[in-house]
Amino acid sequence: MNLVLFEPDELAAPLPRADARARHILEVLRRQPGDSFDAGVVDGPIGKATLVAADDALTLSFAPTHTPPPLPPITLLLGLARPQTARDLLRDATTFGAAALHFVATERSDRSYGQSSLWTSGEWRRQLLVGAAQAFDTRLPVVTWAHTLADVLAEPVAPATTRLALDNYEATAPLGAVAPASGPVQLALGPERGWGPKDRAQLRDAGFTLVHLGTRVLRVETACIAALAIVHGRRAS
Amino acid sequence: MNLVLFEPDELAAPLPRADARARHILEVLRRQPGDSFDAGVVDGPIGKATLVAADDALTLSFAPTHTPPPLPPITLLLGLARPQTARDLLRDATTFGAAALHFVATERSDRSYGQSSLWTSGEWRRQLLVGAAQAFDTRLPVVTWAHTLADVLAEPVAPATTRLALDNYEATAPLGAVAPASGPVQLALGPERGWGPKDRAQLRDAGFTLVHLGTRVLRVETACIAALAIVHGRRAS
Repeated sequence: MNLVLFEPDELAAPLPRADARARHILEVLRRQPGDSFDAGVVDGPIGKATLVAADDALTLSFAPTHTPPPLPPITLLLGLARPQTARDLLRDATTFGAAALHFVATERSDRSYGQSSLWTSGEWRRQLLVGAAQAFDTRLPVVTWAHTLADVLAEPVAPATTRLALDNYEATAPLGAVAPASGPVQLALGPERGWGPKDRAQLRDAGFTLVHLGTRVLRVETACIAALAIVHGRRAS
Repeated sequence: MNLVLFEPDELAAPLPRADARARHILEVLRRQPGDSFDAGVVDGPIGKATLVAADDALTLSFAPTHTPPPLPPITLLLGLARPQTARDLLRDATTFGAAALHFVATERSDRSYGQSSLWTSGEWRRQLLVGAAQAFDTRLPVVTWAHTLADVLAEPVAPATTRLALDNYEATAPLGAVAPASGPVQLALGPERGWGPKDRAQLRDAGFTLVHLGTRVLRVETACIAALAIVHGRRAS
């Protein structure tokens, strides 16, 4: 937890000692009344929080210093994955920085994954908070998990969006050779069992280029980090 | 398990049904006597194994088809990490392909991590096997965990080796801008608490360039995947 994140309505109220953030402030950061630490408001400013008092609950004050920049215009389309894999994707994609994550039903994804408690309990959002705190950012991506690949492909996109889909079988270029140096990017990764022929036809019809990350077969969560590293790296350098 | 890996001396002997590979062959791949599946010999050939008989143990035959290429000349120097983090590093670096992984004591690494059962029980090697099977490769990197950073830096390296160290604080260039298109690479990643001033001096004295992956703070295991994706991507494209 590099940055302790609070919802906008939480900062004025006392923070119960049982809250994981309270324990982090007292036990990991070892802050005492009068000490300050890095904090942020979800989708708002970063600043310094001060521990004013530590009784049954913590009393905090917050002084914003700056607002982080908008998230980069990178949208991920991810085949619905097993909950454990989806957890990693939610957290790590947020750490890298992406404006939206759409978990979509594809030809070979298991639709039951969309009914997992990861989604129904709200745990998905806690993974975003972990990812943002790691990255020292307050901004969270938009997340959806109830649409099909075709639904999301039919949505309008910003002008000059580069559309790239990872594919182990029919890719025509390495991702690093075609990722753009600027502009919006949509990056699609299939589910664990890969894209089906209908998925590929839909992606191609929507203007996606099929790209690869080399000849080695990566786990979905590893491929997602690798692809984001390359897309971000091309934008930065 | 994309490839079922066997040690050289295992192929002639019956495979007990309780072995994880036997269960994978019978229950996941659903192979019956006469069926074949992708298999490989550790640090040896890839080929087709045939399930000859399934009694108390499985009888297998193996027909090699080809030998995978050597691992790329990429060496990782990794600050000794918590066992859970080291597990991910061992598995994922092997999946990407690296010739050697040196887990080293640094100024801010916890030396007790080197006494973890991950190392003493031999579990570290099982993580390599998982990583290689995922990548459809038989080759395992050389792994060490008993040296200091200075020890490993003092070892001779191949001519024209590019030496790069990730650093959140004193990096002078993005990794993507300096990773070479060919030739041997040594890539150093600090422990979770980062490099100390003595580590940085040793790295600089040994000719390392300090590089970054952007402004966002990544977990060590995420940074390792990201860095390998960029280094491999530069070589491939």
